[in-house]
Amino acid sequence: MSKVKILNDPVYGFISIPYGIIFDLVEHPYFQRLRRIKQVSLTHYVYPGALHTRFHHALGAYHLTCQAIDVLRSKGTEISDAEAEAVGISILLHDIGHGPFSHTLEHTLINVTHEQLSVMIMEQLNQEFEGALSLAIEIFNNRYHKPFLHQLVSGQLDMDRMDYLNRDSFFTGVSEGVIGYDRIIKMLDVHDGELVIEEKGIYSIEKFLIARRLMYWQVYLHKTVLSAEEMLVRVLKRAKELTSNGKKLEVSKSLQFFLEQEITREDLKNRRDEILQQFSRLDDYDIVSALKAFDYQDDEILSYLSKSLINRKLFRLELKNTPFEEEYIEKIKKLVTESDKVPSGNLEYLVFTGSQTNRAYSTAKQEIKISFKNGEVKPMSESSDYTIQANMVRKYFLCYPKIKV
Amino acid sequence: MSKVKILNDPVYGFISIPYGIIFDLVEHPYFQRLRRIKQVSLTHYVYPGALHTRFHHALGAYHLTCQAIDVLRSKGTEISDAEAEAVGISILLHDIGHGPFSHTLEHTLINVTHEQLSVMIMEQLNQEFEGALSLAIEIFNNRYHKPFLHQLVSGQLDMDRMDYLNRDSFFTGVSEGVIGYDRIIKMLDVHDGELVIEEKGIYSIEKFLIARRLMYWQVYLHKTVLSAEEMLVRVLKRAKELTSNGKKLEVSKSLQFFLEQEITREDLKNRRDEILQQFSRLDDYDIVSALKAFDYQDDEILSYLSKSLINRKLFRLELKNTPFEEEYIEKIKKLVTESDKVPSGNLEYLVFTGSQTNRAYSTAKQEIKISFKNGEVKPMSESSDYTIQANMVRKYFLCYPKIKV
Amino acid sequence: MSKVKILNDPVYGFISIPYGIIFDLVEHPYFQRLRRIKQVSLTHYVYPGALHTRFHHALGAYHLTCQAIDVLRSKGTEISDAEAEAVGISILLHDIGHGPFSHTLEHTLINVTHEQLSVMIMEQLNQEFEGALSLAIEIFNNRYHKPFLHQLVSGQLDMDRMDYLNRDSFFTGVSEGVIGYDRIIKMLDVHDGELVIEEKGIYSIEKFLIARRLMYWQVYLHKTVLSAEEMLVRVLKRAKELTSNGKKLEVSKSLQFFLEQEITREDLKNRRDEILQQFSRLDDYDIVSALKAFDYQDDEILSYLSKSLINRKLFRLELKNTPFEEEYIEKIKKLVTESDKVPSGNLEYLVFTGSQTNRAYSTAKQEIKISFKNGEVKPMSESSDYTIQANMVRKYFLCYPKIKV
Amino acid sequence: MSKVKILNDPVYGFISIPYGIIFDLVEHPYFQRLRRIKQVSLTHYVYPGALHTRFHHALGAYHLTCQAIDVLRSKGTEISDAEAEAVGISILLHDIGHGPFSHTLEHTLINVTHEQLSVMIMEQLNQEFEGALSLAIEIFNNRYHKPFLHQLVSGQLDMDRMDYLNRDSFFTGVSEGVIGYDRIIKMLDVHDGELVIEEKGIYSIEKFLIARRLMYWQVYLHKTVLSAEEMLVRVLKRAKELTSNGKKLEVSKSLQFFLEQEITREDLKNRRDEILQQFSRLDDYDIVSALKAFDYQDDEILSYLSKSLINRKLFRLELKNTPFEEEYIEKIKKLVTESDKVPSGNLEYLVFTGSQTNRAYSTAKQEIKISFKNGEVKPMSESSDYTIQANMVRKYFLCYPKIKV
Repeated sequence: MSKVKILNDPVYGFISIPYGIIFDLVEHPYFQRLRRIKQVSLTHYVYPGALHTRFHHALGAYHLTCQAIDVLRSKGTEISDAEAEAVGISILLHDIGHGPFSHTLEHTLINVTHEQLSVMIMEQLNQEFEGALSLAIEIFNNRYHKPFLHQLVSGQLDMDRMDYLNRDSFFTGVSEGVIGYDRIIKMLDVHDGELVIEEKGIYSIEKFLIARRLMYWQVYLHKTVLSAEEMLVRVLKRAKELTSNGKKLEVSKSLQFFLEQEITREDLKNRRDEILQQFSRLDDYDIVSALKAFDYQDDEILSYLSKSLINRKLFRLELKNTPFEEEYIEKIKKLVTESDKVPSGNLEYLVFTGSQTNRAYSTAKQEIKISFKNGEVKPMSESSDYTIQANMVRKYFLCYPKIKV
Repeated sequence: MSKVKILNDPVYGFISIPYGIIFDLVEHPYFQRLRRIKQVSLTHYVYPGALHTRFHHALGAYHLTCQAIDVLRSKGTEISDAEAEAVGISILLHDIGHGPFSHTLEHTLINVTHEQLSVMIMEQLNQEFEGALSLAIEIFNNRYHKPFLHQLVSGQLDMDRMDYLNRDSFFTGVSEGVIGYDRIIKMLDVHDGELVIEEKGIYSIEKFLIARRLMYWQVYLHKTVLSAEEMLVRVLKRAKELTSNGKKLEVSKSLQFFLEQEITREDLKNRRDEILQQFSRLDDYDIVSALKAFDYQDDEILSYLSKSLINRKLFRLELKNTPFEEEYIEKIKKLVTESDKVPSGNLEYLVFTGSQTNRAYSTAKQEIKISFKNGEVKPMSESSDYTIQANMVRKYFLCYPKIKV
Repeated sequence: MSKVKILNDPVYGFISIPYGIIFDLVEHPYFQRLRRIKQVSLTHYVYPGALHTRFHHALGAYHLTCQAIDVLRSKGTEISDAEAEAVGISILLHDIGHGPFSHTLEHTLINVTHEQLSVMIMEQLNQEFEGALSLAIEIFNNRYHKPFLHQLVSGQLDMDRMDYLNRDSFFTGVSEGVIGYDRIIKMLDVHDGELVIEEKGIYSIEKFLIARRLMYWQVYLHKTVLSAEEMLVRVLKRAKELTSNGKKLEVSKSLQFFLEQEITREDLKNRRDEILQQFSRLDDYDIVSALKAFDYQDDEILSYLSKSLINRKLFRLELKNTPFEEEYIEKIKKLVTESDKVPSGNLEYLVFTGSQTNRAYSTAKQEIKISFKNGEVKPMSESSDYTIQANMVRKYFLCYPKIKV
Repeated sequence: MSKVKILNDPVYGFISIPYGIIFDLVEHPYFQRLRRIKQVSLTHYVYPGALHTRFHHALGAYHLTCQAIDVLRSKGTEISDAEAEAVGISILLHDIGHGPFSHTLEHTLINVTHEQLSVMIMEQLNQEFEGALSLAIEIFNNRYHKPFLHQLVSGQLDMDRMDYLNRDSFFTGVSEGVIGYDRIIKMLDVHDGELVIEEKGIYSIEKFLIARRLMYWQVYLHKTVLSAEEMLVRVLKRAKELTSNGKKLEVSKSLQFFLEQEITREDLKNRRDEILQQFSRLDDYDIVSALKAFDYQDDEILSYLSKSLINRKLFRLELKNTPFEEEYIEKIKKLVTESDKVPSGNLEYLVFTGSQTNRAYSTAKQEIKISFKNGEVKPMSESSDYTIQANMVRKYFLCYPKIKV
């Protein structure tokens, strides 16, 4: 009999999940909830295949982590079975704190980062599993004495990134994001307790950095995707505003809970179990069902935005390298106000600006390190004749209904 | 400027949608609704990548239809631009009548086939588009004098099948279903007004038939998938029963509409617009959100089934070639009754039987025809030395909670 | 430092070769020779990508064997490191006895099967490597007490077949041959010392059998490929005939050696080292260079056949299920004789018949065994509702220059 | 009946060749010769799958050219059928002048570039085909009044490059070289008679430029590949030297022809038909067979180099950014001289230096042009925030037998 459960994955072929704590965590309702949270939010409005979930991503990242551990062990790095399992748990649960629509609604529904929520949920699970997650939490929090284990979970070359670039490329069909993940993993090594890449892998790293950059512009920050996501944020803001004004909206109990109150990190410490219970019932389905119900709502703004979003009548989004001039914004506002296709009043929900960055590889932060045959270890920026794009690019957007301008 | 809108598709690379009526139909809320209906229902409980939608499938089938038309024209078959557009509309809308969870809930929410609903919706759209769909409807209903156009939409070698086998293989990661769709399309021809395959494509057809067969057993009728889908049917039945007993459940307005009444084909004729309006607001999200809300419900059966389904604690499903003996079913019922993990009473929701078939290629129905170099046309069964699996296989299942047996 | 050499393989991504005897064998001139022997002879005349070599195939089969051993070990089958290495050597060298153009010229240049030559070469290498191949040879010859190790190398589900179906599909681009090799390997187990497949893998096996069948008709026995290969056999026959008549042809020394004498199995025993030395210098390049030189030759038949083959002016090949009637053959011969485009005389080199079979899966031979969850093991033919193609199909061909008929 | 011949291509699925002049050219012995010339010379010594030929590449480039023409026409650029056919012929024959081992032996066997030979062969074929290639030759030589047609054949974004990056990535298995060729082609347009890329394709172009760069370092200039290719150049040089000293080597007649004389461009003009006749009989097989025969040769250098190359006992190759110091080279020479494993004398064949560049995208040459929605056209370097690698990188190598250093 197999000691592992095997899952088909169109990206890697098969993923093996060993029976034991890993399997039990996958079966847990908290982890199953990730089946209902899309990895890349509303990206499927542009790339219709991009419906993959945090569930699939977490399993994929776990799969790559197992491969990385095999490679490191084969090169002489000692990793005990307990450590291997702990790093596995750590990567499996790294996104467990994501709420509906992942990054899009982060800070909108609950003012805490998803990483902080991940830690809290891990701690709750640790109680349930009687301490079996302690080492995993230490690694996740980078408090363990072997930093490379944490770096596999979170760092310049972590298995999170490796999986999401792969997986997002695969499901969007954007070949520009394809990376040689298997080659990169085969080139991993440990030097002075830190993750390094063997010299021969240097071109794969260049390709990895450029693929990431291109995925930002072509997918993650695609104008149409941005427009849809910013509209979604406004819907939730409006719903919160109306709720705080005493209006009762047709939403699920858990969504109601988060619309009614502004949860802070402090609250989360004091009322952890109550809040997590509600949070763990929340997923993309609560939001989409709310959007569909809001359509019937008598608040014109809420109804207009929700209907537009559901039927994919998205706002126009202009994008540029400098902030928009006040004058231009005012001009647009005037046009929107005058349009009879758009509800009047509440212009802040109809014409809005903001900015986004591409989170490019930065030499400022902890750099990727290359190990050479002669024993030397040097940062990437001194190892490659390829000029690394050190600077993050910020782009500014202005978003408004598609009126004739 | 491009005269087409280009979409990325991980299966085919790119799909081109010409501006005009095709584009306008894709933009229509009715078609956008298909974004919220998964192609293969709960299959993702076994194959986590299988989240693709009817929206993507319809576009894919449209794409292949365009290719098929190009091939037929290049071989001398005359197809006017109006006919090409009409067959395109026809395939684009062939699944527009699918409700939430596609086949799984067919006949549960509304007692009409999805094809009948597709026709009705096309007719409504035809009014809205002032007759522009008339020819498409004629082709869809096989009333046009060039039968091969209908056969591209629905027949042994239609582009519907060609796309779904491809797409389901791709997103499940089950390589057994991969078909040489491009080769098959290149081998299409028309003889006496009917679609035929050139002799050289005969092995691709064999492969296509076997791939279909394997997808049935490995994916569509996978035990775990069947179990989840049958549980879902029971949840909806229970919800209908409770509603008819006057209970008010926490569901969307549109779902409420279909729980309250048994819509027949007759109703649909008499109250078409009212019913279609509600139907067109219904999708997977209504169902999943209902499942999540039912969890809180005081009806023990509804709550137990919904919670189990949401958390993927699925029933055991036994499958065999002959019906289950009454004695064995009674034994299981007794064990379930005695279990204290399972709500008591209402055994019909807890232990149930049924059967499924693999809809294999059948020589009885209209057969695939092969055209030989010498001008002859013969049915597949007389053309290949491969013994075609003529008989449909029926399998019987028994489904019940995972108690110790 | 890595303890393995990593090779890129477009089929599997990467292949790891451990330093030690496996690496040393790969580096050996005997194994390097396989770089110059195409896996599928003249198939590239129809499928231009099919230029892959026995070298690549042997490495691929080795790669799959390593995976299979991991799977079997993970399910509790004991395999020592020495056994694992031996079965690895055995699969690596299973085709080492192939001569130029693999099967096409088997028995034409030397009247011994390639398996017999493989064993002889292994024995010679065993002397060179001081006995390190003894266990590998035992396994190859099926004299070891764990039959499943031999079955990995040669049997209904051996890694040889698994690789060549995969690889030939990949390089020809014939998707009909794609198999779920990774799934099949994951489903392998050992029962009573024999290789079996777990129940869940049964559909993958069906697909594997059908893929093999389709590859025969679509690739291996493609009419144009057959024609080219049969022409090549005739060229070599003619060259032998001329040589035995004392003519000196412009060929390499090693090819000269085999043209001059008819080597039997007996000779091979008595003069092993001399014969193997010549054989190990022989590859596709000797043959193609000879063809090009024969073009200049004054023997009209040799020159005509060689020139036709090099320039891909191939003979027509008719294929049918029954032998050709003598009358028809005579008619063709008459036409060929009368043609002024074809050299006169020596009709046996210009019009020839023969037959080929598809070597389908046969229940007569050792059958694939399926292991069921309940512990039972049954042959495939009793396990699947798929009617296995038990009978081998023989097809007859008639081949002659493309004259007007 | 099909009006096209369809070929399987693992890279693009299918390639269609229209009957008529395109088909006739493909059937011509000159074009069939390309079946015997590997696209990337000895790269298969590192990437064993890289055995694809100039024949396959030319067909692939032709296939992409047809797609590009369809795209341009669909955007309103007028291209007559005669022009489309001519540009097709032009790309089909762009490499017809390549000799054995493509670039590796360019200038070694005949001191003329392959492009010059391509033109001469096209002119010869034009006579044979009675002027049917005249327009193709005009386009090839960039003398036609629609420069974009020439740019499809040779330019920053030509279909030659598009195919070889794709194809070389595919057959080596180096995913770093994968490019979004289909997206790039869909973004092509014509502005002022020149090829431009629509704004939306800018990231695909970045990816294309980086993929090219990475293929250089990872494949084309791989140390082991370079070593093998430089050794091959030395073998031929030595053979020429010996021949000019009156030694008769065992080589094919055509190779003999080029060993005996130094053919210049002048000769080619005066004795075109004689030289082309010999040249058109020359391919990789002449060279490899010569290497195998040289092994028997009594010249120690020729025999040593040939044997090493055939058995893949390659020289060590050191690579760096600056030329090697004379002192270091002398040290190596001394060690080589003292080694008893290496033939003595003729050090220039045993220790040699040289340099290679990566032919990166250069802004100096004709730049890629981007067309913006607002009608503007700007060069790539002003359109992207990605700093284009403007400078070519030159690397220096030192190559010598693997003696202990």
